[in-house]
Amino acid sequence: MKKVAVLLSGSGVFDGAEVNEAVLTLLHISKQGASYQCFAPDIDQLHVVNHLNGDVTEEKRNVLVESARIARGEVKPLSELNVADFDALILPGGFGVAKNFCDFAVNGAEMTVNEQVLAVGKAFVEARKPAGYMCIAPVLLPYIYGDGVRATVGYDKDVASAIEQMGGKHVECPVDDIVVDDANRLVTTPAYMLAQNLVDAEKGISKLVEKVLYMAS
Amino acid sequence: MKKVAVLLSGSGVFDGAEVNEAVLTLLHISKQGASYQCFAPDIDQLHVVNHLNGDVTEEKRNVLVESARIARGEVKPLSELNVADFDALILPGGFGVAKNFCDFAVNGAEMTVNEQVLAVGKAFVEARKPAGYMCIAPVLLPYIYGDGVRATVGYDKDVASAIEQMGGKHVECPVDDIVVDDANRLVTTPAYMLAQNLVDAEKGISKLVEKVLYMAS
Repeated sequence: MKKVAVLLSGSGVFDGAEVNEAVLTLLHISKQGASYQCFAPDIDQLHVVNHLNGDVTEEKRNVLVESARIARGEVKPLSELNVADFDALILPGGFGVAKNFCDFAVNGAEMTVNEQVLAVGKAFVEARKPAGYMCIAPVLLPYIYGDGVRATVGYDKDVASAIEQMGGKHVECPVDDIVVDDANRLVTTPAYMLAQNLVDAEKGISKLVEKVLYMAS
Repeated sequence: MKKVAVLLSGSGVFDGAEVNEAVLTLLHISKQGASYQCFAPDIDQLHVVNHLNGDVTEEKRNVLVESARIARGEVKPLSELNVADFDALILPGGFGVAKNFCDFAVNGAEMTVNEQVLAVGKAFVEARKPAGYMCIAPVLLPYIYGDGVRATVGYDKDVASAIEQMGGKHVECPVDDIVVDDANRLVTTPAYMLAQNLVDAEKGISKLVEKVLYMAS
């Protein structure tokens, strides 16, 4: 059975992992007959956002602890991820990627990437194991795969431009499709960069999971 | 287009709505061509549980605010739910139902139900509009539908016995199926009372959503 490492950045679109993207990812990994293990870094969230009114609160929450809400407790510290134990890597999106995995939400193309996330991403590249990044997660790719990496965030001109500025090659893509960088064994899909509802999101995410698992065979 | 009111009890299986059940409910409502609006009571959670280690923490969190994490901000206070605006009601499970919607988690069969949740549940009964309750949520049913209501929580002897003690009729049911109380236009499914994974959970939840929407036509 193929085994996928899924990286979560919290629980909630505005300060953590996008919940629907995370659940749909896990659903489709299971539907394809593969298994998964969720991981998250044991660090404070950049923000805690009240998802009802959008305000940043004074609270402190931990990315690993909050990610456990999506994973029903079954999440491990990212420091324990050994690339040899997995066939593929998938990152759902959400502002958690742009706030907790890197500082894109604050610094745009001048961003830096969390060291553990960077190391894990690069380890999958070095092992020639496939990966899928959805929604805003492709902003990480120029740092992980280097110049020329092909990826999509849908049609968002600002984020696409930032990816190009960091050395990536942005490819426009509708919500129900994927962009494949064959040389890098890398799949991306816009998910909630474009999705208006769960049915939209599921189309691209299911294709991403299917392609990543195919590449892992 | 049929419109479903979905009641959320927070965000996270151990102190709120079961995240997978909630997302699968919303996914299948959309897949069936219906629309939904999420609601949650504007009250403090009974507990905030660290989902990584299971400990109850000192934090305070609000059920409505945390439910917004699942609903991407699109959740309304339960006080604003007008039964005339909806064709059906669905409650995902999670300990939030047993801790925030009632006190079953503390008092078992001696439980009481949150007044707003009780009023909304009864309003759907009085309007003869169908409803679906999954996972642990059927513990509410004897209070909402009265004696003899037929429902399932799977094979859990203790919860089934409590439901019977409160006046309900418990029916055993596997994770991939539903129990229908035709007289009450009521559908239940065990979901994560039994589910070992998302694929299991989806089977029963998709059937529940389909049957509830069929009854609403």
